[in-house]
Amino acid sequence: MTDTPAARLAALGITVPVAAAPAANYVPFVLENGLLHISGQIPFDEAGGLIRGRLGDTMDAAGGAAAARRCAIGLIAQMQAALGDLGRVRRIVKLGVFVASAPDFTDQPEVGNGASDLMVAVFGDAGRHARSAVGVAVLPRGVAVEIDAIIAVS
Amino acid sequence: MTDTPAARLAALGITVPVAAAPAANYVPFVLENGLLHISGQIPFDEAGGLIRGRLGDTMDAAGGAAAARRCAIGLIAQMQAALGDLGRVRRIVKLGVFVASAPDFTDQPEVGNGASDLMVAVFGDAGRHARSAVGVAVLPRGVAVEIDAIIAVS
Amino acid sequence: MTDTPAARLAALGITVPVAAAPAANYVPFVLENGLLHISGQIPFDEAGGLIRGRLGDTMDAAGGAAAARRCAIGLIAQMQAALGDLGRVRRIVKLGVFVASAPDFTDQPEVGNGASDLMVAVFGDAGRHARSAVGVAVLPRGVAVEIDAIIAVS
Repeated sequence: MTDTPAARLAALGITVPVAAAPAANYVPFVLENGLLHISGQIPFDEAGGLIRGRLGDTMDAAGGAAAARRCAIGLIAQMQAALGDLGRVRRIVKLGVFVASAPDFTDQPEVGNGASDLMVAVFGDAGRHARSAVGVAVLPRGVAVEIDAIIAVS
Repeated sequence: MTDTPAARLAALGITVPVAAAPAANYVPFVLENGLLHISGQIPFDEAGGLIRGRLGDTMDAAGGAAAARRCAIGLIAQMQAALGDLGRVRRIVKLGVFVASAPDFTDQPEVGNGASDLMVAVFGDAGRHARSAVGVAVLPRGVAVEIDAIIAVS
Repeated sequence: MTDTPAARLAALGITVPVAAAPAANYVPFVLENGLLHISGQIPFDEAGGLIRGRLGDTMDAAGGAAAARRCAIGLIAQMQAALGDLGRVRRIVKLGVFVASAPDFTDQPEVGNGASDLMVAVFGDAGRHARSAVGVAVLPRGVAVEIDAIIAVS
């Protein structure tokens, strides 16, 4: 039983927070045709504060990767809320990674790895996903990273 | 019969325009596996002119929300063209909201609400969707907002 | 037999390269529920070098379209790796086009056409896709264009 996403989260010392409410008039996830679409998650630290910053300006790649990891924890919280049991995650299909970036910051892949590495650590082969990562001008509330996801569900 | 998307559009005083032709060599929508993918829609005003601007610079959040609402009307026009009957919309699954933003403008959620609120007003619970909203450097033709969508179809 | 994607690629004089390995801890594609999600592809020239630049600054629209065409060739290489036979491509459903853009560059559609035109040239009607195209601040490694894709598979 150590080979479940819940067990791996516990082994990593990660407490999945209560799923964040959306910041506006939409819902955090929609499940249709076996695919769970999860709204873009912004990063909250363990105390519940927003992680703000701009890569290549007020934050470096390591800080960005840590923020991306927190976005991934937010995505997992939404999977938990949507599915009840993380064992119903058949495959992390796609992550869309948006990184608030100064015009000369080009290490978006290293930032995105903060989320990608966690998905593989928690879900194993089922966590291996397609991904896009781009550098955007600015994100809601001034956060450093936003990540949305598509999940295939059993 | 007042409980249909078409009736709600009429009650809102919204005339769905003829679906916009794509600006290039692609198509406005593709329906595969029960999911309708709609190309990014840019905002046209009621006279057919483009709504240009940059949030936090030449346009405020209220103006951006109005532009996002016009993008949503463009999405509904494409649904009408694709499906014939808006009653075939089973669920608005996902909106991808791109907001042309000055680097210090962080109210992309308020802009996106212009589209999200209209989807719920027209489609009811079926209009409640997942969403991402990000601030980009610039959009085609200098428009203020671009929104693409995934729709589950009956 | 001249009416296959492979034959059309040959007629266009395009050699499909070996599919690029992802730049980080993710995979180049995931096939679930009949939909192939392909990771964002960045442009490599025929010698294998990255095509860097920023539209409206160090690159013009024609250069951007050529870079987008190379991204499309990268997407086709991933389809080949995923499916073995390009004849299994039932439909190019959606391209997501991200263009590194100076704030006053608004011809993202013309850039995206470099990819869209090739898809139609190679796959015929099955290559006609939905699309979004946006101008972003900066892309990984400083490349000019990044494109991801959703493909319906037979």
